Amino acid sequence: MATDAYRQAGVDRGAAGSAKDRIFNLARSTFTPGVLGDIGAFGALYKVTGYRDPVLVAHTDGVGTKLRVASLMGRYDTVGEDIVHHCTNDILTCGAQPLFFLDYMGMGALSTDKVEQLVEGLARACRGLDCALIGGETAEMPGMYHGEDVELVGFVVGAVESEGVIDGSSIRAGDALLALPSSGLHTNGYSLVRRVFGIDDNPAVLDAHHDELGATLGAALLVPHRSYVAALTPALDRIKGMAHITGGGFPENVPRMLPERLSARLEPETWTVPPLFRLIQRTGGISEDEMRRVFNMGVGMIVAVAPEDVAGVRAGVPEAFVVGEVADAAGRPQVTFS
Amino acid sequence: MATDAYRQAGVDRGAAGSAKDRIFNLARSTFTPGVLGDIGAFGALYKVTGYRDPVLVAHTDGVGTKLRVASLMGRYDTVGEDIVHHCTNDILTCGAQPLFFLDYMGMGALSTDKVEQLVEGLARACRGLDCALIGGETAEMPGMYHGEDVELVGFVVGAVESEGVIDGSSIRAGDALLALPSSGLHTNGYSLVRRVFGIDDNPAVLDAHHDELGATLGAALLVPHRSYVAALTPALDRIKGMAHITGGGFPENVPRMLPERLSARLEPETWTVPPLFRLIQRTGGISEDEMRRVFNMGVGMIVAVAPEDVAGVRAGVPEAFVVGEVADAAGRPQVTFS
Repeated sequence: MATDAYRQAGVDRGAAGSAKDRIFNLARSTFTPGVLGDIGAFGALYKVTGYRDPVLVAHTDGVGTKLRVASLMGRYDTVGEDIVHHCTNDILTCGAQPLFFLDYMGMGALSTDKVEQLVEGLARACRGLDCALIGGETAEMPGMYHGEDVELVGFVVGAVESEGVIDGSSIRAGDALLALPSSGLHTNGYSLVRRVFGIDDNPAVLDAHHDELGATLGAALLVPHRSYVAALTPALDRIKGMAHITGGGFPENVPRMLPERLSARLEPETWTVPPLFRLIQRTGGISEDEMRRVFNMGVGMIVAVAPEDVAGVRAGVPEAFVVGEVADAAGRPQVTFS
Repeated sequence: MATDAYRQAGVDRGAAGSAKDRIFNLARSTFTPGVLGDIGAFGALYKVTGYRDPVLVAHTDGVGTKLRVASLMGRYDTVGEDIVHHCTNDILTCGAQPLFFLDYMGMGALSTDKVEQLVEGLARACRGLDCALIGGETAEMPGMYHGEDVELVGFVVGAVESEGVIDGSSIRAGDALLALPSSGLHTNGYSLVRRVFGIDDNPAVLDAHHDELGATLGAALLVPHRSYVAALTPALDRIKGMAHITGGGFPENVPRMLPERLSARLEPETWTVPPLFRLIQRTGGISEDEMRRVFNMGVGMIVAVAPEDVAGVRAGVPEAFVVGEVADAAGRPQVTFS
């Protein structure tokens, strides 16, 4: 191990440099006026402007094992979109608009093609949100990540005027709950899906066309997590609380927006669960209750509004539909299905 | 798979809930006045105060395969310190003080003990820096992470007054370069170290005592990445540029602070390389050049100051020593060893 010991140990710093140039140009395509300096410094500089009394809102999340589906299909750009939309939807629930984003990618052996695909997706989603991709880290970790596996983690910082923070505290019994459709599984439930279809043992199941999906299973599973920023921003001043239906499904996410002693009563007959969820349920023999604990079931965001604001919100957000209401309850916030 | 399908698929949401309670209390122990609201919301709220014209500085990084050493030794708190210090040192190079931190942890099967140890380390380091641990994500990814492996990623946001941003642009030929000692390998070079000592195949080598280290190999390798925030903050107004010696060693990190047409001339005889680096070098038969491309060699931070400020900076930062100087060069910034 006289020379090039680090390369032999599985970390190729030359490849790291080449990938960096391509990443940097993609990242620069997202820059907004708030970005100071260039990408590649030890720290990424950003100046918040245009707010009178800004509160910062930060969030981090991962894509989960949807990444395994992406690596089995050899397609990495859509998961880049996934993580940007996942994170920015989360801070939107506080009323915040995204300012900047950073990513972390881990893989066993650096692949410039994979990195570029991942960053293409990140940059595409960031440009769509006026959110600057100002930094990131690509870690080559031989022995830790296996085969084609990649890890992808996102961090977002956004801002909201202090008087515009949405925290659910004004939610009252009798408020209406509006739902917005999801675009697919978003980024949750993939460990269960992998098991139900035996994807790890037989990746060919991803290529099977399903008439009820109008697509292959793999294509349906990779549909990107949609963004709710453009759809909901015009209505933020009338929204009292928002729940992004992610890991833990309805029972873990809807109560997060509710004050104590309130429950969310959802009426399942108000929407049609998309075929992909029913295919998973049928194939795995999974109870409806479990499905709702794991998946979004076609509803990606639930917002609480005063009854008198329902018509106004729906006029600005035509895809929103009444999915239930807030009711009194004993004890901790909860969700029930009527 | 009628009930509890998600648990059978390897994702235990009940364990996730229990770990959450313990994490939340540790995180709350770091809260500073800037934190609004509580941990556990979809977004973490923070209000920047005490700055006249703040610039935000953000950074993300991972611990790399030091995590493998930690998992082989069954000790996870020190890597929590590592990532906080790594990230906050990085934004310090821009002159920024840390405001808040978020973490991402990935593992194959959720272990509340591991999570708690990790967050204990994160919280301890954050408290020491008045940096609030305001959010994070714990991802259970069966099939992606193996055995006791964990992934740990950090994300920090700090602030600096706009006129106090350190970007190296005022560095000139003739400026002095001061070095600050590292506390060990910090968080870089562990893939090479694992290979040199055959750690993955024979973890027992970690338990071997080495007289020259005064410790076992494992203990020496796990020494946390130190913080430079307290040491260097008093001198920031006299520092023109800073380089944190992380992945890529001296050749990749020192040039990052330099303007074009300048080089850093370092004099290796100004410091003694600590025994751990020499043990690695001797065991692996690694060239001095390669060592400097991978490891910090006992120097964790290099700062550039005007010659007339050397005495003043050293008075406030007694551990700093002159390690070389800035010189003219053709083309891109570089580092040379005399």
